[in-house]
Amino acid sequence: MIDTILVLMAPGFEEIEFCAPVDILRRLHIPAVTASIGEREVKSARGISMRADILLEDVDASEIGGIILPGGAGAWALRDTPAVLRLIRMVQEKGGLVAAICAAPIALRAAGILDGKRVTAYPAEEVIAAVSEVATVTHALVERDGNIITGRGPGAAFEFGFAIASYLGFGKQVETLRQEMVYEA
Amino acid sequence: MIDTILVLMAPGFEEIEFCAPVDILRRLHIPAVTASIGEREVKSARGISMRADILLEDVDASEIGGIILPGGAGAWALRDTPAVLRLIRMVQEKGGLVAAICAAPIALRAAGILDGKRVTAYPAEEVIAAVSEVATVTHALVERDGNIITGRGPGAAFEFGFAIASYLGFGKQVETLRQEMVYEA
Repeated sequence: MIDTILVLMAPGFEEIEFCAPVDILRRLHIPAVTASIGEREVKSARGISMRADILLEDVDASEIGGIILPGGAGAWALRDTPAVLRLIRMVQEKGGLVAAICAAPIALRAAGILDGKRVTAYPAEEVIAAVSEVATVTHALVERDGNIITGRGPGAAFEFGFAIASYLGFGKQVETLRQEMVYEA
Repeated sequence: MIDTILVLMAPGFEEIEFCAPVDILRRLHIPAVTASIGEREVKSARGISMRADILLEDVDASEIGGIILPGGAGAWALRDTPAVLRLIRMVQEKGGLVAAICAAPIALRAAGILDGKRVTAYPAEEVIAAVSEVATVTHALVERDGNIITGRGPGAAFEFGFAIASYLGFGKQVETLRQEMVYEA
């Protein structure tokens, strides 16, 4: 029985970076639950309104086994939400999965959990500057350092999702899923 | 001025195949409008509720320059909706873009526009059987035959979106966008 993996939603979230991990985890029957930091209905970076399963304020943090933070403009909202930073620290403290893609590693940095870590992030100056203050930033599509998985941007969304599933113990099923999703790495 | 590109939504649509073309087209300021064949709120293949911009029944077909059909279980609903088949034929008759990914080429086949065409489609028996009755089916991630662009599955969603944008005259911008989306082909 895997604990719930929470996928955070904030206005301006990058739609592919959000959908790919949810799609991949749910295809593998890993319990992925989407949680909004504000309203239930959240508008993506390119204007697609999606409905969160729950509100972050209703989350029972003790039942959360991991969190996933999509990028896009929503990453700044995640960074600036104290409840998100508290959740990141709580999951980190219990050694759960902490995953962030694109600009979202800025929220992990703000939560103070990236010191000395090896991560990747979106190659925009503001993002790299914030993250590289405390962490080693690489150009990889996906990096894993212990329980922290980071992805570089939308084009890394599949590999980010696959890396998360593999970390959660579904490495073998991921190989089948790559074929099922006709994803040629 | 580019005519509106309509992205169809039916319950069970594959979320990445839906989001990637919308994301890519809107990043390039190509007017992509999402249209549901039923309710405004449509649930994706893995349970993400998304809100369509409009209902298909409210579409003024004369203003449509092209259509995009995502795959997933929703492809069968598209195939079985007479208004969708009429729209496909109308766009085809005026030489507009007709794009379908994954299982969705079955709707193009049902509309009777695939005879003698070269297409790709999701490698599931039912899909390949239906499409290959009238068309040549390849194993490519993306095929283009005149105004008809087809994609193989979720893993082809980026290339499918890029091919659509290129076909619409944004080939040069697509090269920049690949970098912006850190998509390494």
